[in-house]
Amino acid sequence: MALQIKAMYLSYVVHVLGVVGAVMVLVWNIHFRGGLAWESSNKNLIFNVHPVLMLIGLIIMGGEAIISYKALPFKKAEKKLIHLILHGIALILGIIGIYMAFKNHNESGIANLYSLHSWLGIGIISLYGIQWVYGFLVFFYPGGSGDLRRDSLPWHALFGMFVYILAVANSALGFLEKLTFMENSGTDKYGTEAFLVNFTAIVAILYGTFVILTALSRSPEEDHHSYSAI
Amino acid sequence: MALQIKAMYLSYVVHVLGVVGAVMVLVWNIHFRGGLAWESSNKNLIFNVHPVLMLIGLIIMGGEAIISYKALPFKKAEKKLIHLILHGIALILGIIGIYMAFKNHNESGIANLYSLHSWLGIGIISLYGIQWVYGFLVFFYPGGSGDLRRDSLPWHALFGMFVYILAVANSALGFLEKLTFMENSGTDKYGTEAFLVNFTAIVAILYGTFVILTALSRSPEEDHHSYSAI
Repeated sequence: MALQIKAMYLSYVVHVLGVVGAVMVLVWNIHFRGGLAWESSNKNLIFNVHPVLMLIGLIIMGGEAIISYKALPFKKAEKKLIHLILHGIALILGIIGIYMAFKNHNESGIANLYSLHSWLGIGIISLYGIQWVYGFLVFFYPGGSGDLRRDSLPWHALFGMFVYILAVANSALGFLEKLTFMENSGTDKYGTEAFLVNFTAIVAILYGTFVILTALSRSPEEDHHSYSAI
Repeated sequence: MALQIKAMYLSYVVHVLGVVGAVMVLVWNIHFRGGLAWESSNKNLIFNVHPVLMLIGLIIMGGEAIISYKALPFKKAEKKLIHLILHGIALILGIIGIYMAFKNHNESGIANLYSLHSWLGIGIISLYGIQWVYGFLVFFYPGGSGDLRRDSLPWHALFGMFVYILAVANSALGFLEKLTFMENSGTDKYGTEAFLVNFTAIVAILYGTFVILTALSRSPEEDHHSYSAI
């Protein structure tokens, strides 16, 4: 289907929400949580890299990758390359972000892989990687047969949206889990930081919503002829 | 769009996952958490009604309501009535479930409405109610004009799926939040109960996934002519 809305307009909302979300997660981790570090005796600074890279990388870059076909006024081959590269960056930042959570846990003696957030996270990054490799091989290089491409495309789009919705939901799980830990250690439940974290999660959910809406809407090409990716 | 899968087959997966999820949430709250109660000096038993009604009501009944058009071999008018009634039951059970969380909080002196789960929950139940009332007025009684119905239908389906995906995601937030509280109070992070809660959340996510897939798939009518709700 293609919703009868111009994707270009929706994509502006995506860009704005992406900037807002990126600023919010940076303000939270740099101003409220003490900053970011690859190595530090303060292990919390290592953890702080995790939400920053997951939101800016996997969610925001991943979202821009999804809508690149609908939001950019370029030729199809160029948009395909942008789609591929943005998803590749999102995937790499996501993997580094997950590594930083393990690094923090291991250096702080915190248990690994017991929470729903961590289980889903491992599942999502694996599916994201499989989806990227499948897309690369079938749609880019060496490229599948015409039949395979045509049969794969709706499933590629649907499975991609499924993994992306899971990623956005899991970011909300992560924000809630971290804030619950903080509130158990004394952070004010109705304080500025708690509200910042909850609203960052809500911005992430709105961002994901507009990404999916954009993906389901009319691209510039569809204004001229009736082609739809799904 | 309509995926080229028969909705009927997918709907069997939905029914099975629904039964599994219902059994799991009941075993968790009755066997592990001590049971369910409307009134009790043990306020935990009041809380336990919350996850049971939200999962069996809002998520499972709501999911069956969504797929009723695709999964049932009845006439359209009959399926519309089933869709309306199942969503009505889901909504009422959801409202009672939310009331039980407030009742537990108020009788135990726990703060209300500070967590992301609670904020999203209030938003979701409100949107679910608005969607139900709009559907009732436009599609059932008194019924909108032909134009209004035709223009509303794709948005009704899309908005319904959006609210439903939010509800499933919020159930995962709820399972994670409750389990995190329990683990902070000594529940084994790798114990049987923790695994049961996490796997119940995963069954809920799988259930929601198959509900959406069924909604996007070919209904029995579409096997004969090419009609699609969205």
